[in-house]
Amino acid sequence: MLDARAAWTRSKDGDADIKAWAWLPESADFPPLSAAQGALAGVGIGVKDVIDVAGMPTRSGSPATSPEPARWDAACVAQLRAAGAVPIGKTVTAEFAYASPGPTRNPLLATHTPGGSSSGSAAAVAAGMIDIALGTQTGGSMIRPAAFCGVVGFKPTFGRVHRQGMSVLCDSLDTIGWFSRTVEQSRAVASVLLPQERLHAEPARAPRVALLACGAIGPLDTASRQALDDCAARLREHGASVATPDADADLQTLLHIHTQTMHAELARGLLPLALSPQAALMSSASRAAVKRGLEISHADYVRLQHARDRLSREWLQRFGDVDFIITPSAPGPAPEGLQSTGSSVFNRVWSLLGWPALHLPTGRTEIGLPVGVQWVARPDEDHALLAWAARWHAQLGANTAD
Amino acid sequence: MLDARAAWTRSKDGDADIKAWAWLPESADFPPLSAAQGALAGVGIGVKDVIDVAGMPTRSGSPATSPEPARWDAACVAQLRAAGAVPIGKTVTAEFAYASPGPTRNPLLATHTPGGSSSGSAAAVAAGMIDIALGTQTGGSMIRPAAFCGVVGFKPTFGRVHRQGMSVLCDSLDTIGWFSRTVEQSRAVASVLLPQERLHAEPARAPRVALLACGAIGPLDTASRQALDDCAARLREHGASVATPDADADLQTLLHIHTQTMHAELARGLLPLALSPQAALMSSASRAAVKRGLEISHADYVRLQHARDRLSREWLQRFGDVDFIITPSAPGPAPEGLQSTGSSVFNRVWSLLGWPALHLPTGRTEIGLPVGVQWVARPDEDHALLAWAARWHAQLGANTAD
Repeated sequence: MLDARAAWTRSKDGDADIKAWAWLPESADFPPLSAAQGALAGVGIGVKDVIDVAGMPTRSGSPATSPEPARWDAACVAQLRAAGAVPIGKTVTAEFAYASPGPTRNPLLATHTPGGSSSGSAAAVAAGMIDIALGTQTGGSMIRPAAFCGVVGFKPTFGRVHRQGMSVLCDSLDTIGWFSRTVEQSRAVASVLLPQERLHAEPARAPRVALLACGAIGPLDTASRQALDDCAARLREHGASVATPDADADLQTLLHIHTQTMHAELARGLLPLALSPQAALMSSASRAAVKRGLEISHADYVRLQHARDRLSREWLQRFGDVDFIITPSAPGPAPEGLQSTGSSVFNRVWSLLGWPALHLPTGRTEIGLPVGVQWVARPDEDHALLAWAARWHAQLGANTAD
Repeated sequence: MLDARAAWTRSKDGDADIKAWAWLPESADFPPLSAAQGALAGVGIGVKDVIDVAGMPTRSGSPATSPEPARWDAACVAQLRAAGAVPIGKTVTAEFAYASPGPTRNPLLATHTPGGSSSGSAAAVAAGMIDIALGTQTGGSMIRPAAFCGVVGFKPTFGRVHRQGMSVLCDSLDTIGWFSRTVEQSRAVASVLLPQERLHAEPARAPRVALLACGAIGPLDTASRQALDDCAARLREHGASVATPDADADLQTLLHIHTQTMHAELARGLLPLALSPQAALMSSASRAAVKRGLEISHADYVRLQHARDRLSREWLQRFGDVDFIITPSAPGPAPEGLQSTGSSVFNRVWSLLGWPALHLPTGRTEIGLPVGVQWVARPDEDHALLAWAARWHAQLGANTAD
C-alpha cells in the first residue's frame, strides 16, 4: 500500500483537477514511525473532514466551522495510528456530511459527481492518490461514492467503530467506514477497527445468498441492473444458492423511517448553528433540512423508533439463514453534474437497520463510469462478509480498482 | 424559578465552600432575552462541564482539555435557550464524567461527597444557587448525586436527548439528564427536551408498581432500606398495587455487561488522549480505566451487546404491566470523604437498559444527609413517570428540596 510520503506526493501533484482534499500539509513532514510494525505500518490514509486528526482543522465542509487545528485524534484515527497508519490530510465532505456538495470531481469522468457525502475520500482512492480513506455514512455517504468512483467501500455494523472525535449529527445513524482499492485492504482496516484474534475465513461451502433488487425503492439503470444480474449469475455458476425473497412490502416503510429519523436528528444537531450568528453561512439545503426536521414532533420520532426496532427484529429473522444479501449500490452510474451527489435510495435501509454493507466495483459503462453491487450482511457479520467478498470479488467482473 | 441574575449572584456568593462551579462569568452580563416567553423564560441554568455552552470553556474536569471557549452551544443547550433558559456557567464534573472527583462538597454536610460525576450540578441545585442544571449519566452520574444531595434527578430514555456538543465517551450509555428542586421543574425541562403537545396526565386509577430491592446487587443501609419501604407503604396506603417480582437472577449479569461495556467504550474514547503527549495529565483512575478497557476484546464486546439486547427484550416483557418500578437510588446516604463519589451500583442496570430513571428525595438521616428512592419506567414512558411522580412525591415523606 502507498506509504504516507508517496501518498502525499501523489495527492499534491494530482489534486488540482479532482479536488479531493480539503486540507493537506505543505510538506511531507510526517512524524517518524515509532515502529515499522502493525497492520498498516507506514500507510498513508485520508480522513473525511468530519473526523478529527490532531494538528489538522476539521471544517465539515462549512465555512461556519473553526479553522483551529484539532487538539487530538478521533478515536478511530488513534487506533489506526497505533497500527502504523499515517493520516496525511483531510478529505472533502459535503457540508456537515449531508447534501450540499464540495468541489470534488469524479476521477473517472470529471463532469460527473463523485457521490457524497464522503466525496473526497472515495475520489482520492479512485485517483490512486491513496489506498485507504475514512468516511462516514448516515444515508448512503459511504456506499454511493464508492459506487460512483469504482472503489471498495465498507460501512460496518452500527455502533461498533467508536465515534469520539467525529462530528455526530444523526446519533442513531452516523457510522464510520472506509474506502480502499481492494477487499483485502478493507480487511486490513477492519482488523484494526473491528479487531479480532484472527481473520475470519468463510466456510468451505458455497454461500447462501439473497438477491434483493428492491424494485419498490425505484428503477435501476440498465448498467446497474446488469451488474446485479451478472453478480447473481457468477455466484450461481460457482455453486451459490441465490434466493429472491420478497421484501418490497417493508421497503417504503423503512425508507420513510430513515428519512424522518435523519431529518429529526440532523435538525437538532444543527440547531445550535441555525440559531447562532453564523446561521447565514449555512447552505440553503442545510437550512431546509433543519426546517423540515424541526417539523417532526418528538412523539412522531419516538413512534418511528419503535417501528424501526420492530422491523429490525423481523428482518433479522427474515434473513437469518443467508450468508449475505446482494442488492444495488445505486440506481445507476454517477450522474452528470456536480450540483448533486446522486441518490442514496438503495443505501438508506441498511443505514437505518445498522447492517454492514460493502460496495464491490465490478465493471464500467461504455463511457468509463464504474458500476458494481452492494453486499450486505446481518449485524456483526462484518468479518464474514469481508471474507466472502475477498474470495468472490475477482470473479464478479473486472475489478476496476486494480 | 431563579432567574439568571439571581442565580449568578447566589452562585458567586455561595460557591466558595461548595465549589459547584467549574466556570462562572465575572459579571452577570447575560444577553437580554429575545422574548420573555417559553417554558423556562429567564431561568438561569447550570451546565455540566462535559456539555458545550457557546463562549464558555468545556474542561471535562481535566487539565488536558482546551481552555478555549466553545464556538456553539450543545444541541440541548440550544433547545433550552430557545425556550428562554439562560446558561449561567459550567458545573464541576468528575474527570471525563468518570471516577476521579472534582473539588465539590456536599451542601448538606461539607465533609461528605456530593456524588458524581455530575457533582457540581447536583450541589448547585441543592445549595439553592440555581433551580435547574444539566448532567449526564453513564453508570450512576445523575441519580447518585441527586440522591446524595437530596434533589430531584432525571435521566431520560437513552437516545432521546440529542448529544451533539456533549463529550461522548461511552457511546451506547451516555445520556443527558437534569437536576431540579421539584418534579414540576423537571417536567418543565422535559417539555423542552422531550417535547410533546401537552403534559402527560397519569391515569385516574392507582398505579401498578414493582418493588425491586435488588438484594443481589448489594446490601442497603438502614436509612435507604427505610426510605424504600416507606415509599412502598405510602403507595399501598393510597391504593397502589406493589408487587415484588424476583429479578435477582439477571442482575449480576446486567451489572457485568454494564461494567465491561462502559470500560470498553471509555478506553477507546480516551485512547487519543492516552496516546498523546498530554497523557501524563490523566488521573491514575482514568489511566487504569483505559488499561482495563483495552483488555476487553472486540469479540467479547460484541457478545456482551448481543446479551444486552436479549435481556433488554426480556425485561420489557417482564415489566410490561407495571406503571413504574421503585428501587434504591444508592446503598445509603452520601459517604464521608471527597476521594470517592460513592457507589453507582443501583443505577447501572437502568443506564445499560436505557430506561428513564428518577431520583425522588424523601427524607433525611439524623445527621442531615438526604435519602430517597429511585423510580424507573419502561423506555419512552418518561412523561408518564414524571406525571406519576408529580402526583405522589409530596406523599412519600418530607421533600427536602423545598
